[in-house]
Order: sequence, then structure tokens, then C-alpha cells
Amino acid sequence: MSGASRPQLEARLQALSKRMATVGVEVLVVTNSPNIFYLTNLRASAAVLIIGDSVRVLIADFRYLAIARMVVAGDQSLTDLEVVPVAGSYDETILGVFGRLGVARVGFEAENLSVRRWQWLTGRLNEKFIKFVPTDGIVEEGRERKDAYEIEQLQTAALLLSRVALDVNELVREGVSEREIAAEIDRMLYRIGLERPAFETIVASGENSALPHARPSDRRLSLGDLVVLDFGGVHNGYCGDLTRTFCVGEISERAFGLHRAVLEAHGAAVSVVRPGIKASAVDEAAREVLRRHGLEDMFGHGTGHGLGIEVHERPRIGKLTNNGAVDAELDTGMVFTIEPGVYVPGYGGVRIEDDVIVTEQGCEILTKAPCALTLC
Amino acid sequence: MSGASRPQLEARLQALSKRMATVGVEVLVVTNSPNIFYLTNLRASAAVLIIGDSVRVLIADFRYLAIARMVVAGDQSLTDLEVVPVAGSYDETILGVFGRLGVARVGFEAENLSVRRWQWLTGRLNEKFIKFVPTDGIVEEGRERKDAYEIEQLQTAALLLSRVALDVNELVREGVSEREIAAEIDRMLYRIGLERPAFETIVASGENSALPHARPSDRRLSLGDLVVLDFGGVHNGYCGDLTRTFCVGEISERAFGLHRAVLEAHGAAVSVVRPGIKASAVDEAAREVLRRHGLEDMFGHGTGHGLGIEVHERPRIGKLTNNGAVDAELDTGMVFTIEPGVYVPGYGGVRIEDDVIVTEQGCEILTKAPCALTLC
Repeated sequence: MSGASRPQLEARLQALSKRMATVGVEVLVVTNSPNIFYLTNLRASAAVLIIGDSVRVLIADFRYLAIARMVVAGDQSLTDLEVVPVAGSYDETILGVFGRLGVARVGFEAENLSVRRWQWLTGRLNEKFIKFVPTDGIVEEGRERKDAYEIEQLQTAALLLSRVALDVNELVREGVSEREIAAEIDRMLYRIGLERPAFETIVASGENSALPHARPSDRRLSLGDLVVLDFGGVHNGYCGDLTRTFCVGEISERAFGLHRAVLEAHGAAVSVVRPGIKASAVDEAAREVLRRHGLEDMFGHGTGHGLGIEVHERPRIGKLTNNGAVDAELDTGMVFTIEPGVYVPGYGGVRIEDDVIVTEQGCEILTKAPCALTLC
Repeated sequence: MSGASRPQLEARLQALSKRMATVGVEVLVVTNSPNIFYLTNLRASAAVLIIGDSVRVLIADFRYLAIARMVVAGDQSLTDLEVVPVAGSYDETILGVFGRLGVARVGFEAENLSVRRWQWLTGRLNEKFIKFVPTDGIVEEGRERKDAYEIEQLQTAALLLSRVALDVNELVREGVSEREIAAEIDRMLYRIGLERPAFETIVASGENSALPHARPSDRRLSLGDLVVLDFGGVHNGYCGDLTRTFCVGEISERAFGLHRAVLEAHGAAVSVVRPGIKASAVDEAAREVLRRHGLEDMFGHGTGHGLGIEVHERPRIGKLTNNGAVDAELDTGMVFTIEPGVYVPGYGGVRIEDDVIVTEQGCEILTKAPCALTLC
């Protein structure tokens, strides 16, 4: 079975227990599915984990009950994890679990509980003299630095994705539609052995490529188009993410210039990654190059994002802001994308994206595919 | 351009305004993406709509700004809808919009705002003497009955899906893996012209078919297996959803018996659908048949779910419960699945799913594909 080993799961939980103690909660109600996967190996779109020194309960509804029981029964499970089926609703079942525990301070994930559910739960828990305490990303904090199992999955995901990348430029031909290319990329992702696309594959050609999040359309490629291909794949629940930009037919001076500038920005960002520097310094390295080329205004997004169980997770690799967004200090084992881009409205765009892991010496690029604005 | 027309959008908004008046809010902050698509035609994974008699503002970040502006500039847009780019964060931008309005009671979607965001916003709004009021599904209520544009999209989605269903039984052969079949189904979905799979395609064979939400595995089909194929597709943002169960090779008495019982339950549920009856009565019709066959305990989920912009939406077609889950009264224009199933642990399962629309006379089945446990 794929999945982290029991010692790995116990180590993740132990680290979480320390963070729980720091924020003063005895038990944590985990409602965020990727966090539940991280802590238990259970992949389910709905489930609740209640975890603490005195309790290890996984609540699942009918849809996931059999899978939850299989996961827990295997030797790649937290010890003494009990599966409780949903009775009535998830929230009633959560309440039932607390009926038998003597705890005073229960944490919940404030970013992953709706106001509606919170209103109901906090009222009922207060009746039992239990304080329901908001916590912020205390599981996510652990996920930021990957352990050996996770690194292996991310390496494989990136490698499989790179093999697809070696073939995609053949798809970029005059007359083919964006949608046809997207469907073919998805097929290649499955064929290479990835579980599924990590997100809706982006194929953006001509003026569409100036939209960073364009959806594949029926637009057919024509000579001179820039074409941005951005695709991801999942391996054992871990995501890879890769972008390359191609040109249909002859490459114009303008297209070549944009591509060269983005490639330079990409290289500059990669070269500054190392433990101890701020994420914003990586962003600034890319931004500075584009500024020098007079293209900074056309680079409207951040330089990258963390990669793991989710295709967007910590750390954020972006500008330093004063709105409270965290500017992480990079550390070994962090995995994220580096993906500067320039977008010229009405003309087109270029983006180049690789996945990197922070190492003691600097970083290693996990995706291995040439970046050239290949002639098709 | 696909999308509802201006009069359709204005009609949706007018109906919403009445519901807002009923719950006593002047302005509604819409954070749920499907609701934003329903009200504006904008498809974006992140955006905020602030809507009321005195304000029509759509907040979008860099990723979706160009698309939001295109949508709003066209003639298929609400009149006077203003696009405001995110400045700082979404929540800071929301606050900025309220800085220039003289309103006292602002609603938000309690199921679609996290406790974390609510804490921040409610504090800042209270400083401005604005009450931030939780609302429950007041946009979703309007989405429950489909308008002419939506019905057309759902019909097309179901029809395209049915064409795929006509071919899938050819994929079910001894020796092929679940994953290979899933990848091929996805390819067929694209080829037929659907935008994308509506969810991760389910191919569950043999004992895996006893798990209603199994993920395609590397398991290869063998003679005698029951194989559940559950797949969906999106057309112009609207979902179709269809399940058929097949048998590899010769059909055993046992497999045939399960299939016949489920087919009977499916037919019983379809036959009772009409305006004025409760959703739970449709569920009970299916359940009663399975009870008679001694299979009720092996039918652990509800009989169906609403279908529209989301693949699971209102109405819920399930048992009457006492945990507050709504038991809708069916009305014309409601679209939902009917999908009874039986799941025998260790052996296999059968599910048959169609999409129906409630009509004045009863209902129409939108998916058109034979239900036989086809010999492969």
C-alpha cells in the first residue's frame, strides 16, 4: 500500500502535539481533508479527525467507512486509531465523541470550518463547559517541510510530469485546438502512470496566453502564437506542477525577447534559493530581472507556491506585503514552484514553471525538462 | 458566448433580492463561486460579489481580472456591474467597498465563509456600525429550480454523457485495469465535446465495486466481476452524472439478482417523481423495493442529489431525518439524480444512476442509455 509508514505518521503527530500544546489545546478537531490524509493516510473528501493525548478518532460517513476501516486496520496506520461512523450528521457525531471525554479546551481549524458549523458546535460544546478554540494552520505548519516519504512522492510526481513535458511540444501545431491539446495532455498524464491531473490543464494560445488562468477553448493555434501549457499530476496523493511556453512556427523577435526575459527571471529565482533566506527574496530575484527588462508590470502574480498534498500550499513565494501574508523563511525539505511569467494583453504571455526542493546547498530542480521556446 | 442572458441574470437577481428582504439584509456578500457564476456568468475559483439595491460590485484578483472584465463588458452581464481589483487581500477590498456605502445590515453566506475570515470582517464592519448577518443558502434556494437556459445546458450535458455511456461497455473486458478504463472514459468525455469530467471518474470492479466511492486502482478485471462505472461531464458549466453497472463475461445468478433489484428500485423512484411530493418519498420508493428484496441494509446512501452548476447541490433526495437536513418539496424545473445501489462487502456492488427533471406531468429522464447488465 502506498502511504507513509506508522513511524512517519507517529512523528507527524508528535510534532503536531507540540504545536497544540503551544496554542493551549488538548484536542484538535481536524476538518481539512488534506490534513487528515497527512495525519492518517486516509484520502476522503469528507471525514473528521479528533486527535489528542487521550483520543484518536476518525469519523467517516458511509461513502468512506470501508476505506477508513481498511486504512486503520493496516500496519501503516496510527496505533489505536478508532473509526467512528457518522450517526446523524458529522457535527452530531463530533459532539458524541466529546460526550465521553474529559477535556476543557478543544481546538478547531478556523480556516476550515464554516461560520454555520461553528455556530452549531460552539453552542453545544459550551453547554458541556468545553471551550472551542480557533487555531491557524497548525497542521499545515508541519506539512511545510516534507519528510522522506513525501519527498520521494514529490520527486516521482515531478519526474513523471517531466516525461510528459518532453512530448508535449509535438502537440503544439497550427490548426489544433486548445481543448484538443488539453485532452491529449490529460491522456498522457494517465498513460505515464499519474493518478490524475492535479488541476484543470491550461492550454492558452495567442491572446489567451495573456490570461494566467485561461480555460482551454476551441481556439485553434495559428502561426506565430505563443502557447502556454501548464499541467500537473498526482502521484500517491502528491502533486507536481509544470509550465512550458512554446511558439507555433517561426519565433518572432518579440516572442523570443519575452521568453528570454522570463527564463532569466526563472534562473535568477532558482539561484537564490537556500535555507535561511526569505521566500520574498526568491520572488524579488525574479521580479528584479523583469523590472530590468521593463516587464515588471506584466508580471502580476507571485513567483511560486508550495507543493505537496495540495497543488497550492505553504510556503507562498511572493512579494512582501503588509496585509499579514506570511513571508516564510526557507528551510530544507520545503518544496515549491518557481514560475515567473509575463502577460501582454492582446498579444500573449510566457510562463516557465519548475518544482524545486530546498537542500542544504541551495535547491534541486525536481522537474527535468528543457525550457526552450521550441520550434514546432 | 455561452452563459445566461442579461434578462435571465436580472431575473435571478430580482428573486434573490426578495429573499434578501425576507431575511432583512440590504446587501449580500457572495463568496461561494458557483453562486457567483449563477449570478454573473463569471467562472472563477476565487472572486467576491457584493450585491444589493445600491451596489453591484465584483471583486477579482489578478488571475481572473481580465476574464471578469470581459464578462462584465459583454451584453450577457448584469447592468452596471463594476469590477474592482483586489487591493491587498479580498477581505480588505470588501471592507473598502463598504467604506463608501451607507448600509446597516450586510448578509454573508454562513456556509461559505470560514471562521477565520468572519472574525476579521465582522470586527472591522462592527467598527463602521455595520451588522454582519449570517444567511443560509439564499442564493442556492434560487438555483434549486432551473430556468430555461439552465435546463438546456443540463439536457445537453446529459445527452453527451449518454452517448459516452453507449460505448463504455466495450471497455469492460477481462484483463483491463480500472485505471485504464477510467482514462479512456475521460478521453471519451472530452472527445464528445464535454468540457471536463464533473468529478474523478469511478471504475470499481469486483470487491472494489462494494465501495460506493472507490478510486480507480490497478486491479485488472476478471471473469464474473461486477463493474460500476460512474462518470460525469460538464457542459457550459453545468453537470451531468451517470452510472451503469456491467458484468465481465457470464452473468451469475447472484449478480443478475442484485442488478434486477436495483433496476426495480430505480424504476420505482422515477415513477413517483412529480411536483408536490417530498424528496424523501422518492428515496422511500427506492428503499422500499430494496427492503422487499432484503437488501435495504446494503443501500447506505441517499437515492439522489440535485445537479446543476455543482455535481452535488439541492435538492437532497434522501431519508427523512431529524437532524435538520431539508426534505424539499419537489417542483417543476428541479434536476437531480436517481441512483439506488446495493453493496455487498467482499463481493461487489451495483448502482444505476440517471438524471431527471421534474415536469408538470411527473419527470423526464435526461440521460438516455440502456441499463442492462450488458454481456461484454
